[in-house]
Amino acid sequence: MPITRAFVTGGAGFIGSNMVAELLARGVNVVVYDNLCTGQSRFLPPAPGQLTFVQGDLLDTACLNRSMAGCDFVFHYAANADVRFGTDHPTRDLEQNTIATSNVLEAMRLNGVSRILFTSTGSVYGEPEVFPTPETAPFPVQTSLYGASKLAGEALIQAYCNGFGFQAWIFRLVSMLGPHYTHGHVFDFVRNLQVDPTQLHVLGNGHQRKSYLYIKDCIAGQLHAIEHATAPLNILNIGSDEACEVNDSIGWICAELEVDPVRHYSGGQRGWIGDCPFIHLDCSRLRALGWQPTLTIREAVVETVRFLVANPWVFEHRD
Amino acid sequence: MPITRAFVTGGAGFIGSNMVAELLARGVNVVVYDNLCTGQSRFLPPAPGQLTFVQGDLLDTACLNRSMAGCDFVFHYAANADVRFGTDHPTRDLEQNTIATSNVLEAMRLNGVSRILFTSTGSVYGEPEVFPTPETAPFPVQTSLYGASKLAGEALIQAYCNGFGFQAWIFRLVSMLGPHYTHGHVFDFVRNLQVDPTQLHVLGNGHQRKSYLYIKDCIAGQLHAIEHATAPLNILNIGSDEACEVNDSIGWICAELEVDPVRHYSGGQRGWIGDCPFIHLDCSRLRALGWQPTLTIREAVVETVRFLVANPWVFEHRD
Repeated sequence: MPITRAFVTGGAGFIGSNMVAELLARGVNVVVYDNLCTGQSRFLPPAPGQLTFVQGDLLDTACLNRSMAGCDFVFHYAANADVRFGTDHPTRDLEQNTIATSNVLEAMRLNGVSRILFTSTGSVYGEPEVFPTPETAPFPVQTSLYGASKLAGEALIQAYCNGFGFQAWIFRLVSMLGPHYTHGHVFDFVRNLQVDPTQLHVLGNGHQRKSYLYIKDCIAGQLHAIEHATAPLNILNIGSDEACEVNDSIGWICAELEVDPVRHYSGGQRGWIGDCPFIHLDCSRLRALGWQPTLTIREAVVETVRFLVANPWVFEHRD
Repeated sequence: MPITRAFVTGGAGFIGSNMVAELLARGVNVVVYDNLCTGQSRFLPPAPGQLTFVQGDLLDTACLNRSMAGCDFVFHYAANADVRFGTDHPTRDLEQNTIATSNVLEAMRLNGVSRILFTSTGSVYGEPEVFPTPETAPFPVQTSLYGASKLAGEALIQAYCNGFGFQAWIFRLVSMLGPHYTHGHVFDFVRNLQVDPTQLHVLGNGHQRKSYLYIKDCIAGQLHAIEHATAPLNILNIGSDEACEVNDSIGWICAELEVDPVRHYSGGQRGWIGDCPFIHLDCSRLRALGWQPTLTIREAVVETVRFLVANPWVFEHRD
């Protein structure tokens, strides 16, 4: 069934705004629901008559329930994505990721909407023992409040599929890169190197291995899955088939910026408590549906640096 | 490190009150925290000077934080255990199981308590494909709001172990039977057969296979694990090595009550939405520590019927 009117939570954020642009290009009507805590209204293209923007919080259930009226598909991107500072605010992930997801599901029930796309995270695998990690990896142990809150969101959606006949596409993401990126190591490194191109402070030993995906490949993969994965519940890893070290990424960033800083490492396998030293997802389930990424991790890092250099205002909006 | 003063949430409930009795017998000071929604103060033995009872709700964080002062171990049993009616109250499990668990963990941080025992459930395995189901079963899919909320509780506790140095014992339980039992199929059947011993209405086709454990074996197993499983995080299935059909249990109940009703089946593999037609946990991890159950399922069912017949007042407290 095609999407007529999409409700996009976090639609002014990094991933959400890229999906909104693609939905608009496909002629879908869109309601963006965003509290603009981390989202930017500048990320939303002008689209009079086709795009409605609601500045609202997912914990404001009256506003949420009202705003979803007339929609037939929910893209749920709004979340606290600050993995690193979870232990500084131990209930933030619960509120903004778990309780917020419950509120979205209840708003859907009230409005008769039964289809949802949810962005979970490769962090739900904790510190896996199988690489690349498939969706059927052994029962995971959570190592971060962020991962715990996203796992809880997944679980709620699964229960709604079984209990209320919802249809869901749950994506476990690697880290995303590309236009509208405002959060993560490339952001931190570019900002710091613009202040002082001679020094770079790196959390951990730089050998943490992560996988990244270009945001436009992510959006294409998600829309491809909605069309081609038709089970009531579809759980899909989404990432590239490569992984790189933080040190690799630093090299690409520095080459693009034409700087050569002295690197200072804080040491240790992990950048912070709950950091996973190796993330690499097995995405063969999504690939079997006919999707594949178009950019390498290196190309995605370079695209991200170029976006940040061309849009210095994004640094001003961070606390 | 021995337990000096235990904080038992849901301490007036079925499992909690059995643990309280055992802790008191071992000379431990106990604070019971229970809102008496399903717990019964009659389940608490008189123990002046050794037992403190607080009628409080886990969503009342001020009362919770205050009441935990001076404790050095938390037994977290309080929960909504109504698996069957989850879809009638879609946020109840989130509030009473997930948010409540977050509140308990925050109260522990505030009070400097770092050890917790948590009762999760075999329901977190959803509809598993491996029987008996080990703790390392493939990444599960949730089929009930109850299972989802307990999985979220587990995940929170795991994140606190990694982020705040907590030590935890997480038990995934089969259904419990024995003294102070006030909830489940034996309860329903005994109550209904006492009203009309000639007819019995059964949800599903009666072939659902479940595993049960005698409550005193559960308590012994949990205390055994606290002494012998010393990792920062210990996840343990707890149940018997048998499973039985609902029909087997009906036979034992009827024999004990000396009735022979006509059985009416609602039909289908499942008793209700989210009911798992086969639950059987692999408990070899806990057995390897030197624990084993003492009663068979049949003996536990008979013990439960005798408790219910001897304590008809428990039926009056149910809505």
